[in-house]
Amino acid sequence: MESETKSDIIDATNRVLCEHGYAGLTMQKIADESAMTTAAIHYHFDTKAELLNAFLDDLIERFKAELASEATDPRERLTAFLDAAFTPTNPDADGFPVAIMELKSQAPFQELFRERFLDLDDVMREVVAEIVTDGIDDGHFEETDPDEVARLVTTSINGAHARKVALGEPLDETRHVLENTLELHLDWQPESEVVA
Amino acid sequence: MESETKSDIIDATNRVLCEHGYAGLTMQKIADESAMTTAAIHYHFDTKAELLNAFLDDLIERFKAELASEATDPRERLTAFLDAAFTPTNPDADGFPVAIMELKSQAPFQELFRERFLDLDDVMREVVAEIVTDGIDDGHFEETDPDEVARLVTTSINGAHARKVALGEPLDETRHVLENTLELHLDWQPESEVVA
Repeated sequence: MESETKSDIIDATNRVLCEHGYAGLTMQKIADESAMTTAAIHYHFDTKAELLNAFLDDLIERFKAELASEATDPRERLTAFLDAAFTPTNPDADGFPVAIMELKSQAPFQELFRERFLDLDDVMREVVAEIVTDGIDDGHFEETDPDEVARLVTTSINGAHARKVALGEPLDETRHVLENTLELHLDWQPESEVVA
Repeated sequence: MESETKSDIIDATNRVLCEHGYAGLTMQKIADESAMTTAAIHYHFDTKAELLNAFLDDLIERFKAELASEATDPRERLTAFLDAAFTPTNPDADGFPVAIMELKSQAPFQELFRERFLDLDDVMREVVAEIVTDGIDDGHFEETDPDEVARLVTTSINGAHARKVALGEPLDETRHVLENTLELHLDWQPESEVVA
């Protein structure tokens, strides 16, 4: 019951962040959006920063869960990774880049946000580097620096989010550009051609 | 004199944005930072949005001026472009990515910000595509799709800014990754090896 309430508050936070941005986020708006009182929200989260840290933890945990792929072939694992990164299903596909950009832009002022983003970036780079290493070892990918490819992939994902938020550009357009570049790096042909 | 005052206000806006973020930006803080009264600032800019649009125009004009290179060789022009994008000298090298991310994250809520970012992106992509086209024509670059390379370059720049702000990662690290990828696309050897 308690965790259901917390999860309702976190969902409401996401909607307020997507609709009003970080600058417009207040406990009152989250209360309105979740049909709770601000007192009830303060019972679970002392401060706005504490609530937003919990929000980020939730976002990152869901994203990590999506990254976990059942596939064993490195080519399929790479596709599954790109699906998770470029087509987020949780908590809200369209709002995800907005919510994450709002909090990224606060990282210079909130050390605990930055720590979470560093953690997320480490996880993403490790997953990609491991897939690339395995793909080179089993002969599916061309010899290349796995860490370098991992940096390219994560930077493109960061760029895709920024472009979605600032320009309204669909995430799939950046995915398409990245996949063409990965073909050059890995001699890898993406299984599904993405329509730009 | 009037334009000097405006430029002082814009410089103060940059400092406030870098120090407090968009959420903490108030006319009062800009007044304090510029040693003017809020009334004097309101004389020049009716609203905070109007002031920030002027701030963005100024940022974009300075950036466009930096993009203009004297070089004629496409390889040197590409280096000059990357210098301008990854080592901004104006108005404040360290603050530039922070200020621009603060306003990008507001683009979903401020149509006039979005228009300016779309304009800037068009300019950047045109410049890169033109350099690549010229380099292919004169035989310095390998045959490739210039628009695709332009998208890769701009996405990497967007990603570099996001990584600088969210993770504190130096812009040069992303530049290094991008240059290695451009070698694959263009068979181009960057003149100056950048230390990551």
